[in-house]
Amino acid sequence: MAKYARSPLAPEAFPELPVIKGARFASHAAGVKYQGRTDVMMVALDAGSSIAGVFTKSSTRSAPVLDCQDKIGGAPEEGAVILVNAGNSNAFTGKAGVESVRAITTSVSEIMETPIPRVFTSSTGVIGEPMKHERIIAALDTLKGKLDENGIEDAAHAIMTTDTYPKGACATFEVDGKTVNIAGIAKGSGMIAPDMATMLVYIFTDAKIEQADLQSLVSAFTDSTFNCITVDSDTSTSDTLLMAATGASGATVSHDTKAFRDALHDVMLDLSHQVVRDGEGAQKFVTINVTGARNNAQAKVHAMAIANSPLVKTAIAGEDPNWGRVVMAIGKSGAEADRDLLTIRFGDILVAEKGWVSPDYKEEQGAAVMKEQEITINVDLGLADGSSTVWTCDLTHTYIEINADYRS
Amino acid sequence: MAKYARSPLAPEAFPELPVIKGARFASHAAGVKYQGRTDVMMVALDAGSSIAGVFTKSSTRSAPVLDCQDKIGGAPEEGAVILVNAGNSNAFTGKAGVESVRAITTSVSEIMETPIPRVFTSSTGVIGEPMKHERIIAALDTLKGKLDENGIEDAAHAIMTTDTYPKGACATFEVDGKTVNIAGIAKGSGMIAPDMATMLVYIFTDAKIEQADLQSLVSAFTDSTFNCITVDSDTSTSDTLLMAATGASGATVSHDTKAFRDALHDVMLDLSHQVVRDGEGAQKFVTINVTGARNNAQAKVHAMAIANSPLVKTAIAGEDPNWGRVVMAIGKSGAEADRDLLTIRFGDILVAEKGWVSPDYKEEQGAAVMKEQEITINVDLGLADGSSTVWTCDLTHTYIEINADYRS
Repeated sequence: MAKYARSPLAPEAFPELPVIKGARFASHAAGVKYQGRTDVMMVALDAGSSIAGVFTKSSTRSAPVLDCQDKIGGAPEEGAVILVNAGNSNAFTGKAGVESVRAITTSVSEIMETPIPRVFTSSTGVIGEPMKHERIIAALDTLKGKLDENGIEDAAHAIMTTDTYPKGACATFEVDGKTVNIAGIAKGSGMIAPDMATMLVYIFTDAKIEQADLQSLVSAFTDSTFNCITVDSDTSTSDTLLMAATGASGATVSHDTKAFRDALHDVMLDLSHQVVRDGEGAQKFVTINVTGARNNAQAKVHAMAIANSPLVKTAIAGEDPNWGRVVMAIGKSGAEADRDLLTIRFGDILVAEKGWVSPDYKEEQGAAVMKEQEITINVDLGLADGSSTVWTCDLTHTYIEINADYRS
Repeated sequence: MAKYARSPLAPEAFPELPVIKGARFASHAAGVKYQGRTDVMMVALDAGSSIAGVFTKSSTRSAPVLDCQDKIGGAPEEGAVILVNAGNSNAFTGKAGVESVRAITTSVSEIMETPIPRVFTSSTGVIGEPMKHERIIAALDTLKGKLDENGIEDAAHAIMTTDTYPKGACATFEVDGKTVNIAGIAKGSGMIAPDMATMLVYIFTDAKIEQADLQSLVSAFTDSTFNCITVDSDTSTSDTLLMAATGASGATVSHDTKAFRDALHDVMLDLSHQVVRDGEGAQKFVTINVTGARNNAQAKVHAMAIANSPLVKTAIAGEDPNWGRVVMAIGKSGAEADRDLLTIRFGDILVAEKGWVSPDYKEEQGAAVMKEQEITINVDLGLADGSSTVWTCDLTHTYIEINADYRS
């Protein structure tokens, strides 16, 4: 972790997150795998908290994901506990993996006096290695003693793996004259091409909201935030987003409360961008806008084909305005395109139109855009009104370094 | 080209290709883009030659591909000419690209006294730059003068771009007591994830065969050879395979002639493997066998998900037996899989079964397999009888170097 420098795309500092009444956080160095750093975090949620979640669609999802998924939608009367470890994903660990989840959730239930159906766990790290769950269980008493409503920033550190910075985002706004807060944390940063959710993301609010409303908002916004980012096209077996609403603000919101919807979407978008900005080896943050597609779904297919193309991503790493590779990616995507109706812009620079390079385009213009740290590629297909925006990063030597040597 | 060393996976030497009576070859340094090397090749085919072809499915395919596609299936009475240049792909070059094809085919038709519908052209190289077709046209007389039935090896050199070695394969066998020859050449070596055909491939035989039979054989075998390789998941706008049967051997074959089928399939498989072995930056040749899938199509989806996963490919580059990433790739592929029925072998080593690492597996065993230059990953899904084999290479620093700096 300390091996790689903080991403050049990182925000200047971790944001000042508001306290979410009804949620307390603790983290600890349990030594699951890493030494000399925190690697377990616990969140205790007061009775009355609604919990929503979205999870990876991988057909080889991990034991904690399967367990967590089953528990979404339960009764909020009892409060809840979220327990997360870094260092071992407990994925593809067979019956032993299921046993680890059972052991951890049973111990948490006893120590925290919370029924097992309200104990949610996540694990992130290496796939396929036996989980040293006894080390986590040994830390539970300490974690309970450390619980603190100000502990969320430390929790963001405890869930990191190859992340180079902790990720947080928040919003504070009024509903019916009452102040409502949202605070979230996330970790990335490789194996990022979420399919339904992403990596590990935990969002908290003190609003009061029915579980079904919370779930529908979180699911909908995941589609335009976490499901629109990609680092390397590889989808994790552990992707999990959990959101808890404690209700402690006294403000009641619903699926239709605009201030809450807007704030939640902003927090999710912010966290999803932070995951891309910490993509393994990332030097450039890239926004890809596709418009004029037959429909939104086809626009996203094109946008993701561009975002996942190794040739596009290496061109960006090399600051090469190689729009021919953008054309290639559109061509291979499988979604509808007419070569001669394409318009491509790098930032504001018109690069290609009507099936060829624009007559006014000069290579220096494209090259200047590519030198920026934040690059926007705009593609109009000229077919209809479908559109999509996705976010990615470049593909650099550091990605190869990190991933050719992750386990050693 | 000379910038990168010959691939460590290259064959020892270019094979001794048999003369194909009825086909003559010439190559020349026309200076289309490269200096100090040949970059144009011409093949003159005698009257009576059947020509079959398969092409990229890209929706942004190049002007020469569109022109070539239209001409497949024409009458063989007139003979034919194939003209190929390297250095500029004439893809995404708008009306000017169409004009370049028209200018070249018209000049070839005049100089070679061959009707335009029997003049086939291919172009490979940079996308989106205007084609200096006048340089190619200026070389046509010289090319005509150089035509030689022994010119095929030089032709294999003339079509190279980032390839580090020329690619050739051949077969000689008997049909009805007559000797029949097949000889083919190909070029790679990035933007390789063919969707119907691959890159540039030219195969010649002196067998006599109906065009429809030749086309159906070439199409069928493309599915199990060129359509089963991937270097970087990116599909070219120019992929072209042309096959010509001159009939000069006097042996008549059909769709059902076993000796011809077997030999043609072997030549296509050999050439497709040579393209992977020259994948940009490749250090390892990787065979991925998927069995036990619901059907063959689903097996191929899994196999391609493994072959295209940046995390699997970087693990192979790092000689890391990281089977967890194989599980991840299967999980994200979208095809059916049951985590707990998976069996994974690296070479002959049983790594994982029943949803977890095999109890007898030792990391040293996997590590030893990964040190080999040729690696086989065997996955059994345990569902039904579907199977697929695909071939790929690893993802190394050299791929990034080549592609972050291709145009400069």
